[in-house]
Amino acid sequence: MVKRTGRSKKVGLPPGTLIHTGEKGTAEPKVTIIDYDEATVQEREVKTIEECFVFRDKPTVTWINLDGVHRIDMVEKLGDCFGFHPLVLEDILNTVQRPKMEIYGDYIYIVLKMLHVGDPSHPIEMEQVSLILGSNFVISFQEGKEGDVFNPVRERIRNGKGLIRKMGSDYLAYTLLDTVVDNYFLILERMGEAVELLEEELLTHPSHRTLQEIRKFRNEMISVRRAVWPLREVVGSLGRRESPLIRETTEIYLRDVYDHTIQVMDALETYREMLSGMLDIYLSSISNRLNSVMKVLTIIATIFMPLTFIAGIYGMNFKYMPELEWRWGYPAVWLVVAGIGISMLIYFKKKKWL
Amino acid sequence: MVKRTGRSKKVGLPPGTLIHTGEKGTAEPKVTIIDYDEATVQEREVKTIEECFVFRDKPTVTWINLDGVHRIDMVEKLGDCFGFHPLVLEDILNTVQRPKMEIYGDYIYIVLKMLHVGDPSHPIEMEQVSLILGSNFVISFQEGKEGDVFNPVRERIRNGKGLIRKMGSDYLAYTLLDTVVDNYFLILERMGEAVELLEEELLTHPSHRTLQEIRKFRNEMISVRRAVWPLREVVGSLGRRESPLIRETTEIYLRDVYDHTIQVMDALETYREMLSGMLDIYLSSISNRLNSVMKVLTIIATIFMPLTFIAGIYGMNFKYMPELEWRWGYPAVWLVVAGIGISMLIYFKKKKWL
Amino acid sequence: MVKRTGRSKKVGLPPGTLIHTGEKGTAEPKVTIIDYDEATVQEREVKTIEECFVFRDKPTVTWINLDGVHRIDMVEKLGDCFGFHPLVLEDILNTVQRPKMEIYGDYIYIVLKMLHVGDPSHPIEMEQVSLILGSNFVISFQEGKEGDVFNPVRERIRNGKGLIRKMGSDYLAYTLLDTVVDNYFLILERMGEAVELLEEELLTHPSHRTLQEIRKFRNEMISVRRAVWPLREVVGSLGRRESPLIRETTEIYLRDVYDHTIQVMDALETYREMLSGMLDIYLSSISNRLNSVMKVLTIIATIFMPLTFIAGIYGMNFKYMPELEWRWGYPAVWLVVAGIGISMLIYFKKKKWL
Amino acid sequence: MVKRTGRSKKVGLPPGTLIHTGEKGTAEPKVTIIDYDEATVQEREVKTIEECFVFRDKPTVTWINLDGVHRIDMVEKLGDCFGFHPLVLEDILNTVQRPKMEIYGDYIYIVLKMLHVGDPSHPIEMEQVSLILGSNFVISFQEGKEGDVFNPVRERIRNGKGLIRKMGSDYLAYTLLDTVVDNYFLILERMGEAVELLEEELLTHPSHRTLQEIRKFRNEMISVRRAVWPLREVVGSLGRRESPLIRETTEIYLRDVYDHTIQVMDALETYREMLSGMLDIYLSSISNRLNSVMKVLTIIATIFMPLTFIAGIYGMNFKYMPELEWRWGYPAVWLVVAGIGISMLIYFKKKKWL
Amino acid sequence: MVKRTGRSKKVGLPPGTLIHTGEKGTAEPKVTIIDYDEATVQEREVKTIEECFVFRDKPTVTWINLDGVHRIDMVEKLGDCFGFHPLVLEDILNTVQRPKMEIYGDYIYIVLKMLHVGDPSHPIEMEQVSLILGSNFVISFQEGKEGDVFNPVRERIRNGKGLIRKMGSDYLAYTLLDTVVDNYFLILERMGEAVELLEEELLTHPSHRTLQEIRKFRNEMISVRRAVWPLREVVGSLGRRESPLIRETTEIYLRDVYDHTIQVMDALETYREMLSGMLDIYLSSISNRLNSVMKVLTIIATIFMPLTFIAGIYGMNFKYMPELEWRWGYPAVWLVVAGIGISMLIYFKKKKWL
Repeated sequence: MVKRTGRSKKVGLPPGTLIHTGEKGTAEPKVTIIDYDEATVQEREVKTIEECFVFRDKPTVTWINLDGVHRIDMVEKLGDCFGFHPLVLEDILNTVQRPKMEIYGDYIYIVLKMLHVGDPSHPIEMEQVSLILGSNFVISFQEGKEGDVFNPVRERIRNGKGLIRKMGSDYLAYTLLDTVVDNYFLILERMGEAVELLEEELLTHPSHRTLQEIRKFRNEMISVRRAVWPLREVVGSLGRRESPLIRETTEIYLRDVYDHTIQVMDALETYREMLSGMLDIYLSSISNRLNSVMKVLTIIATIFMPLTFIAGIYGMNFKYMPELEWRWGYPAVWLVVAGIGISMLIYFKKKKWL
Repeated sequence: MVKRTGRSKKVGLPPGTLIHTGEKGTAEPKVTIIDYDEATVQEREVKTIEECFVFRDKPTVTWINLDGVHRIDMVEKLGDCFGFHPLVLEDILNTVQRPKMEIYGDYIYIVLKMLHVGDPSHPIEMEQVSLILGSNFVISFQEGKEGDVFNPVRERIRNGKGLIRKMGSDYLAYTLLDTVVDNYFLILERMGEAVELLEEELLTHPSHRTLQEIRKFRNEMISVRRAVWPLREVVGSLGRRESPLIRETTEIYLRDVYDHTIQVMDALETYREMLSGMLDIYLSSISNRLNSVMKVLTIIATIFMPLTFIAGIYGMNFKYMPELEWRWGYPAVWLVVAGIGISMLIYFKKKKWL
Repeated sequence: MVKRTGRSKKVGLPPGTLIHTGEKGTAEPKVTIIDYDEATVQEREVKTIEECFVFRDKPTVTWINLDGVHRIDMVEKLGDCFGFHPLVLEDILNTVQRPKMEIYGDYIYIVLKMLHVGDPSHPIEMEQVSLILGSNFVISFQEGKEGDVFNPVRERIRNGKGLIRKMGSDYLAYTLLDTVVDNYFLILERMGEAVELLEEELLTHPSHRTLQEIRKFRNEMISVRRAVWPLREVVGSLGRRESPLIRETTEIYLRDVYDHTIQVMDALETYREMLSGMLDIYLSSISNRLNSVMKVLTIIATIFMPLTFIAGIYGMNFKYMPELEWRWGYPAVWLVVAGIGISMLIYFKKKKWL
Repeated sequence: MVKRTGRSKKVGLPPGTLIHTGEKGTAEPKVTIIDYDEATVQEREVKTIEECFVFRDKPTVTWINLDGVHRIDMVEKLGDCFGFHPLVLEDILNTVQRPKMEIYGDYIYIVLKMLHVGDPSHPIEMEQVSLILGSNFVISFQEGKEGDVFNPVRERIRNGKGLIRKMGSDYLAYTLLDTVVDNYFLILERMGEAVELLEEELLTHPSHRTLQEIRKFRNEMISVRRAVWPLREVVGSLGRRESPLIRETTEIYLRDVYDHTIQVMDALETYREMLSGMLDIYLSSISNRLNSVMKVLTIIATIFMPLTFIAGIYGMNFKYMPELEWRWGYPAVWLVVAGIGISMLIYFKKKKWL
Repeated sequence: MVKRTGRSKKVGLPPGTLIHTGEKGTAEPKVTIIDYDEATVQEREVKTIEECFVFRDKPTVTWINLDGVHRIDMVEKLGDCFGFHPLVLEDILNTVQRPKMEIYGDYIYIVLKMLHVGDPSHPIEMEQVSLILGSNFVISFQEGKEGDVFNPVRERIRNGKGLIRKMGSDYLAYTLLDTVVDNYFLILERMGEAVELLEEELLTHPSHRTLQEIRKFRNEMISVRRAVWPLREVVGSLGRRESPLIRETTEIYLRDVYDHTIQVMDALETYREMLSGMLDIYLSSISNRLNSVMKVLTIIATIFMPLTFIAGIYGMNFKYMPELEWRWGYPAVWLVVAGIGISMLIYFKKKKWL
């Protein structure tokens, strides 16, 4: 539940020391390059990172995707070639970053969290994506977990669908951002279904397990919120075009992404309020159940204690107990007993305990 | 309860792809045009969207109302003719927008939520309304649910009541906004009645159902607040006249709408505080009921346990039990029993348990 | 409790439509005029609203007080004569306004809530007061409920006590504001007494009624806060002299009123915190009482169950039960019974249950 | 607990009317004057307020301390001589002010709350101190309660310790402020001890009294916070040197006082969080106790009910009950009884109820 | 738990009076000097503070570390030599400062809290570190508790690893800050483990002790937050380069530290939310346990009370009780008893109480 940040490995080291702090991906890192302009597309997967260097000065838009940041040497070489600040490289490797954006002279560094929807019974998987946006390139770094959400973007570049081939690298960066954010809605839908199921369970047969589900769900929501909340700011300041790398035509699209992050936050907020309402219902249903248990006990005790007392009285061995000699004594006791029992039941009926 | 946003249909598509994400309205879309200036009014319902195009350049104020945004083709054609940005058209079709306002060069795009008051036993129905305000037109898009709240506005245009015929398109947009907000007060009144009923129920016969009512009501309030809260900002920035499309004379009216949205928020806030107070009362009434059940049990047990013990004693079969031989032994036991019982009752009376 | 706002009467009407939304005051409206400068005072009650018109252009300060806004015609005529905006007149008639201030060219419109202290057992009565401040007049509109809090002001004008006769209309408006705010302190004192009584009741004999009192009191506080909170802003922006109608000499007095409204908010906040503390105590006192009930039950059961069991044993009819034949068997049982009972009592004494 | 503000005495009076709203101090007011510059000190106690007037225009720094603001005449004469605004005099007399600062042309008016540490079993005593800082004088007004916290300042002036004799009146005002704030730390320490005691009591033997202590303590904290919180702002804006009366050399010292007020607020906040944690523990300890009471009851009932039933069976008077004739029937019953009892105890042991 | 601030020792003393308010460190203070530029490093430990004075005007970067601020004389001499303001010296000695930064003409004063990770069973140890950054020196003051976190920095200076030897004093100050903040992550990891353990304990065998652990942990978190929260601001304003002492090249590194402090705050916030969720689970598990206790009691009572009543009936001594004479009366009773018992068990099974 509580992520070990791995930050502690770095205590005392000079800044810019490149240490990978995430889980060691075992797979071989995969580097793909897509280079395009309005007329042409070129796509390939390379083995050595050096093959990327030629794209640095090509005027066409280049998207380099490095899937597997645990290969520190690759990240370092790439950084050296493109001239990124050591702190940027450090942040790329450190996979517990908070979403943020940093404007350097001629490139912008963006960190965000990609959420995968896996099997519904599995927890949400989170993968850090770093984007570096330059005037003619976007470099994206992934942690190397299986799969990503960028295939539709690749498809659009290949087919030339939409504006993407006509626009610059900033539009590509926007598209990647947008795709990540759009994916949050899948997570939200899954959450919405979970909330519905929880509500139903709560109303029909609440149990201690329900509470634990609520708790687990709340913790999940906390981590999703931590991924989304700072992104709002990131997208917001990109949209304010604080760097000349963002062209005016892209601004309006970024505003759109901004709206989407707000919608995500809104939905999370709504779920949070619903969950806290559920907790109240859960606690009150426990109390209600205690109440109904106690009513059963009280009804039983209230009926049988007087009756047992009466039976006890006529079980006494006094010599002079005239009732014992009566011919109808015994049936009379049964009558009294039945009378008391029935009147008690009527009493409880009227008190709405039955 | 949790709205499926339908956003997930759009994951991975290029921005500006027109996909309708709401429930498919089945009805045929209805397009009505009202064109007026101070002297003349012309009103008609058209079959094809192309009939609207002539109004684009007419100097008179034109109000085009398209009821049924699931007809993507109509929206698209209209957008093409009037030159709206693809993202605007996308937002019009996406019916889970948050209320917002966006200023484009020569038009303003406004999204808001219309709340219908249906049958009191039904949940509040929410319909997204998009307004596009140009210098000489207002185009409104509705989801195509049955009925809208704009009939009084149509009536006022027809009769020339009030200022509406003398003012421009911005005043028409204001009037539509105002009508939607005014309708919120109907919802508020209905809510106020519901709160009163809940309070009464809570004080006379609180039950688990009451709690669920409170919860349902709270969820309803959350969604109304989500519709109203961002509207405040929308109306506020319209009132600050950030676009030249808003004339100075209209500013004061927008300030008035702004006041109304604040009144709505205020009332919602008050209801929220009252509901949370109700929850406390509900929980304490459960505890009180438990207390009173336990008192009954304790009284019964405290009275009959000693009595049964006494009866038990004289039911023993010891050979030498002198009391058993006494002539008045049996009546004496009854006396003792009655004495204990009555003193117990007095004790409980004094402890205020009876 | 929940005020029906009456706003719904207005849905769909054009802005500026004059409709009175409060309770219909039945009394005949009362119009009083006080006209004064440093040297002279003239005071009279008029029958027709037209008699006020002559004061519009008199250089002396004129205070017109219209008690009874349900006479729409009067408000309208007055508005026409003095040239007020239709929305102002609408707001005057609509008695569920939130306190606010609006600056128009040559007059300022102020709405505030006057709180009456009636009989202590009655709820606080709220009356909307609208003030319109012009360069040489103040017009005040009241709802027409019985009584107001302005008599001391009238007295001061008549006697020329203090600065009031030497200053302009802005000082008069300040004086009316100040008087309304000063009256809030009476309400606060009454609330303070109520809080003290509640605390005492809570500590000596808390009951379900106490909780309902707390709730009622909290609801009352919510509505007072709604009346005071926006007033802070109103007085604050008056004090910033955003309109030339407020002279510099008056500024310092408005700062004083501002301090007072903050004091009122402070006190309300303190009461709120005290009430929430009371709720905790109430809930814990219920739990404590349950605890003590359960202790009584447990003590009784723990003592008498073993004893009854022993009596039951010797009530068995086995042929061979040697104890039954013993000479001292019966007294021995009594000894054992007494022994068990007393040791139980000692045990509970030590556990502090007795 | 709830302070009667006494404000209600003033309702309807013109502003600037001098009415003392605190408790009437009975003691004769004491006026002391300390006049000093770097070379000389002159200190004396005067009988009539007129003796202060000569110091108004002396270039040396003069500190006039008036202990007993219920002598309205003295305050008024002093105000007349030094030319203070009537509202300032009104505020000095009104001892329920909130800490604030007001800059007038050639003097600054500061209100703050002095907290006395009396006997630990007594509540904290609060006394309002008003300071008026002019270019060559500081006048301080106290309510006339016994004792003040300024003696160390007097001592420092007499001895010329520290900078005080070398600096101007602003430094003197700072010193007085600083002394009052330093004294808050004494209160904080006392509170810290109280919190520790409460924690210990809570963990060893929580009772309803503990809860009331927590409540009392919380109310005390609320009133201390009300005294300190606005002071932060006061000191902050003094430090921003919004008036030329504050010299640059004093600025840095005011920043120091500002830090101290923040430290005080911090500590109060920490106490508040600790108290709210205590409440949770208290409530859970009540529930735990209920649990343990119920366990005792359940254990007793579960053991003795079956046993009593068995004894009851063999107390029946059926003619044909073979067991009754058995030679070892009675001992067998005892064996069964012991077996059931012991196995029950083992069961409860395993369930950790014992 | 509640720190005695020791501030009260200072009440009434003039500002700048040097009094040490922390615990008296007993160890001899240790003064170490490291003086370096790109080419040379010189490191030594000195006995008398005067040996530091020669470094004041050397152009190389000098780091003087004084471990043991209880030696007031040393602090004072150092302050005199370097010309620090008396209030700075006072704050260095006063070890209950809040993290803060103050810009003086030619030096910057920074206070922060160093957190030591000791034995996991011990509470977190906090030590105040004061840094004074001048153009060519950094002076650090520690409380003199054993150990510090700066050894890696010393190592880096000696070895010339990283940039440190190439940069100025501001980079050294940054490095010290960074090291302190990096160390917070160790604390966070330890906290994360504690939270995990608490969660597990809560789910498997929650006890009153768990609650106390939660409370202790929360109090620890409060104090860590108090150390970190204001540091955010400190690092933030350093990063905004409000003083020329911070060079542009260092700015980016400070931004990095800023991110780290935000990450720390984020994690603390997450822990806080998780803890509050745990509390809900704890309280509900208590209620659940009460419920299950009560069910046992109710089941036992509901089964045996009717049975005991039946046995009581046939223990009565009436002369005419035909059943007693029946041959199969006794076995019939057993049948009835078993029947009632079994049907009760089935009933409870169906109610899911078993």
